[in-house]
Amino acid sequence: MSGLLVTFSGPSGSGKDTVLDVLLKKNNNIKVSISMTTREKREYEVDGTHYYFVDREYFEKNIKENKMLEYAEYNGNYYGTPQAPVDEMINAGNAVILEIEVQGAEKIKEKCPDVVSIFLMPPSMNVLESRLRGRGSEDEDTINHRLVIAREEIRKAYDYDYVVVNDTIENAVESIETIINAERLKSSRNKNLISEVIRNV
Amino acid sequence: MSGLLVTFSGPSGSGKDTVLDVLLKKNNNIKVSISMTTREKREYEVDGTHYYFVDREYFEKNIKENKMLEYAEYNGNYYGTPQAPVDEMINAGNAVILEIEVQGAEKIKEKCPDVVSIFLMPPSMNVLESRLRGRGSEDEDTINHRLVIAREEIRKAYDYDYVVVNDTIENAVESIETIINAERLKSSRNKNLISEVIRNV
Repeated sequence: MSGLLVTFSGPSGSGKDTVLDVLLKKNNNIKVSISMTTREKREYEVDGTHYYFVDREYFEKNIKENKMLEYAEYNGNYYGTPQAPVDEMINAGNAVILEIEVQGAEKIKEKCPDVVSIFLMPPSMNVLESRLRGRGSEDEDTINHRLVIAREEIRKAYDYDYVVVNDTIENAVESIETIINAERLKSSRNKNLISEVIRNV
Repeated sequence: MSGLLVTFSGPSGSGKDTVLDVLLKKNNNIKVSISMTTREKREYEVDGTHYYFVDREYFEKNIKENKMLEYAEYNGNYYGTPQAPVDEMINAGNAVILEIEVQGAEKIKEKCPDVVSIFLMPPSMNVLESRLRGRGSEDEDTINHRLVIAREEIRKAYDYDYVVVNDTIENAVESIETIINAERLKSSRNKNLISEVIRNV
């Protein structure tokens, strides 16, 4: 089965993590890429599960040696995707999903044109707002700021290959499975299969 | 739901008709385009089901008035796809499948870049050969000729968007359903959906 790289974006509150959790539990051949970061580990986080937590020196060495698929700096910390584990999982025939913000997805599209990009959309701004409020952990200003950012991000959905509406987790998961299964049938990913049928008697 | 146009090709013996039959019976929103031809109707054929049988004058009038999505002439007869019924079915949200040979599919790809092209492959040349022999209706020369043509046609599979292997009817039908469902999620086919979410409060 042909492996492939998938970028997965969506505004805060669109439900990316929940959808990914269910998707990964249901599918053995779909994996998620773990990012590397120089920021402090939070108490509940596990090294190698949530992130690879490394120091600046190690991260910059990886950048110099061209070992990062993409990276960026926010608030003085590096965040990025190490190339080697992604390649390994793809070569083993997996679909590898990178949960990544809009700019990162754009960078990867430039570098790897055969990446599949998926944008997770809330069914409406109203639903997004009530999901953000439902968290109960953020004040009015933060929520309003997130909504402004969300609208900007959703505008970028036009540049993605696919748009999945997260009306229910089940529908969203099924849509992503459908996209990945269809992409595996692309003739550009099956050149060996075609030439084998022609070659054999 | 967004409608779309699908071209569907494959060598003689690949099982296109059987796969289409099952696909259409299972899916209310997948339709097949009926071709128009000037050739004689065969006894078992039904006008409006197998083809629209028309005279040369009527066909040529349609060509002149730009009412054909594509057409070609073989052995002195015209064969082609009338545009209007296809548009109507697509506008109603259907996936409309055109069973068409390789050259016809190429022409349509040029004219309608957002067409989805699917090539149905036999699992091997051996299987194709035994399917052709299984028909029991053709002599050795005809079968050998069909196999030469088939190999040429399979070489064109590289130019199609998707390749579906017809190992079993069920798998082939499921793959085509998957492709159509994924294509319906393409952001290029969902621009209204994106702008509606942004516009609403």
